[in-house]
Amino acid sequence: MHIAITGAAGFLGSKLARHLLDAGSLIGRSGQPEEITRITLVDVVAPVGFSDPRVDIIVGDISDAKTIEAMIVPTTDSIFHLAAVVSGHAEVDFDLGMKINFDATRHILERARALGTQPRVVFTSSVAVFGGDLPAKVPDTMGLMPQSSYGAQKAMGELLVNDYSRKGFIDGRVLRMPTISVRPGVPNKAASSFASGILREPLNGQAAICPVSGDTRMWLMSPRQAVQNLVYGHNLDAAQFTFTRIVSLPGLSVTVREMVDALESVAGAEVAQRIQWQEDDVVKRIVNSWPGDFEAARAKAMGFTADADFASVIRAHIQDELAP
Amino acid sequence: MHIAITGAAGFLGSKLARHLLDAGSLIGRSGQPEEITRITLVDVVAPVGFSDPRVDIIVGDISDAKTIEAMIVPTTDSIFHLAAVVSGHAEVDFDLGMKINFDATRHILERARALGTQPRVVFTSSVAVFGGDLPAKVPDTMGLMPQSSYGAQKAMGELLVNDYSRKGFIDGRVLRMPTISVRPGVPNKAASSFASGILREPLNGQAAICPVSGDTRMWLMSPRQAVQNLVYGHNLDAAQFTFTRIVSLPGLSVTVREMVDALESVAGAEVAQRIQWQEDDVVKRIVNSWPGDFEAARAKAMGFTADADFASVIRAHIQDELAP
Repeated sequence: MHIAITGAAGFLGSKLARHLLDAGSLIGRSGQPEEITRITLVDVVAPVGFSDPRVDIIVGDISDAKTIEAMIVPTTDSIFHLAAVVSGHAEVDFDLGMKINFDATRHILERARALGTQPRVVFTSSVAVFGGDLPAKVPDTMGLMPQSSYGAQKAMGELLVNDYSRKGFIDGRVLRMPTISVRPGVPNKAASSFASGILREPLNGQAAICPVSGDTRMWLMSPRQAVQNLVYGHNLDAAQFTFTRIVSLPGLSVTVREMVDALESVAGAEVAQRIQWQEDDVVKRIVNSWPGDFEAARAKAMGFTADADFASVIRAHIQDELAP
Repeated sequence: MHIAITGAAGFLGSKLARHLLDAGSLIGRSGQPEEITRITLVDVVAPVGFSDPRVDIIVGDISDAKTIEAMIVPTTDSIFHLAAVVSGHAEVDFDLGMKINFDATRHILERARALGTQPRVVFTSSVAVFGGDLPAKVPDTMGLMPQSSYGAQKAMGELLVNDYSRKGFIDGRVLRMPTISVRPGVPNKAASSFASGILREPLNGQAAICPVSGDTRMWLMSPRQAVQNLVYGHNLDAAQFTFTRIVSLPGLSVTVREMVDALESVAGAEVAQRIQWQEDDVVKRIVNSWPGDFEAARAKAMGFTADADFASVIRAHIQDELAP
């Protein structure tokens, strides 16, 4: 099998690539596990740490047709399209968000369609497609009401992937991801960046600013769990999606206060005290528009899974990222 | 005020233009009624019967940038964007549907944004954005699940208009229209074409084919009511839309059998007997994916209105279209 991954220099793309290289196989068009012979990693900066001979790297912008043409070729069986301009950035630069989050997605779908082989396309979407006057626990039937350009662009991408699949152009799967925490690396322009920063930085001995109040409820998933669900979503039989290829994944519903309490329980009070509470109205507006809890009944029935509790999410982060 | 209307050669665009010329004013940016001094009518064929000096006509394809540039000019205050490739046609020609229903809509929004004056944009959407496993009565919070490319394209257009409005680029209003019946003129490629044909043709002494079963539940609005709601939606203060510019309009929920019974009660058994029942699987699949009843609580609270009953819809059609 030949796999392509966009956003492959990002933490999720890199983790997914490593997981696939280790696993060595994915469910192919035969419906059976097939050996992974090639993984094409695409990003604007080169993904690092990949010396495996099965890996080839394309450094390029997915808004450039040449990048897409080089990335999706007749041998391409499956595409994990993870690249995006994150929420805070897309809110500041609307046109860049449209170009990357929507136009590039459409271009990828068109190129995949042109292959004529119905490649599997796994597209990551977000809780940011929801907003407005939401119930405490969002049902699977909830209407879209994005309150950010990122959310609107992801919602349009969802609709495209779904319709391309319905038409038989591709075999798409849209996974609405919870906010990923604890994301390794450095802060980014996502409005949710703090949801990792308030854990990652204190664990590294650094101060971190929490721009929202402690009672803010978040819908979270660990990087390990995210990789597992991406692969699971890829491998599902298309028929299991029935009316729509779009599925809201299960997650952990925790308040920011509970996240900090879990940090204290795992790493001690001294670590948790490195968090400075300093509210930011722009971040608060976007984050508070996102739902903090979902039923995710459909995803659970399909076999997608959530983390057990937030303390174990923190322990997994320490194990994966901070182990000597 | 200078108004632009796309799809102006269509029955709804023409009726709206005539209504606006008669009314002479619309709510302008001042929040007060302002005199209509110019109406630009745009369509691929010339709208007929407009000799009013306030009217100028642009014959052109809205997928052509030149048409949009000629149509939206610095004096443009409000745009009614009604033009679309209809459901059955967009299902057969996916790329044409994308070009007109999505790309041209985006181009119109971009041009309106470039004016820098936040023009009002009224965009007509459709019940076709819904589908799948629907409750008998669709609530305002229902999730999008289009089962046709037309529905997917309209849903993407909705999201764009909403986000352009949220960003302050335009002042948009998205009205999800019920199926319009009785539509004057000739059959078209809309899957819902029969919902007018089974009334219009028998009233004209002609046979008509009904491609769905009598128990098919439809969500309908008369042309008169549609024009009234388009103007009402245009004139509403933006603040009334709160979290989203998208609103599902009220309508009449009737079965096809009830439509035919109403025809018989208004025009006699002989007329109703001109309907031939001959099911068509393609039409049935699309039409049955649409909801037949909506709560429309939000629209009603905002002051949008529905027809009283279907017999009066037929009587209005006879009065408007068949009077000597």
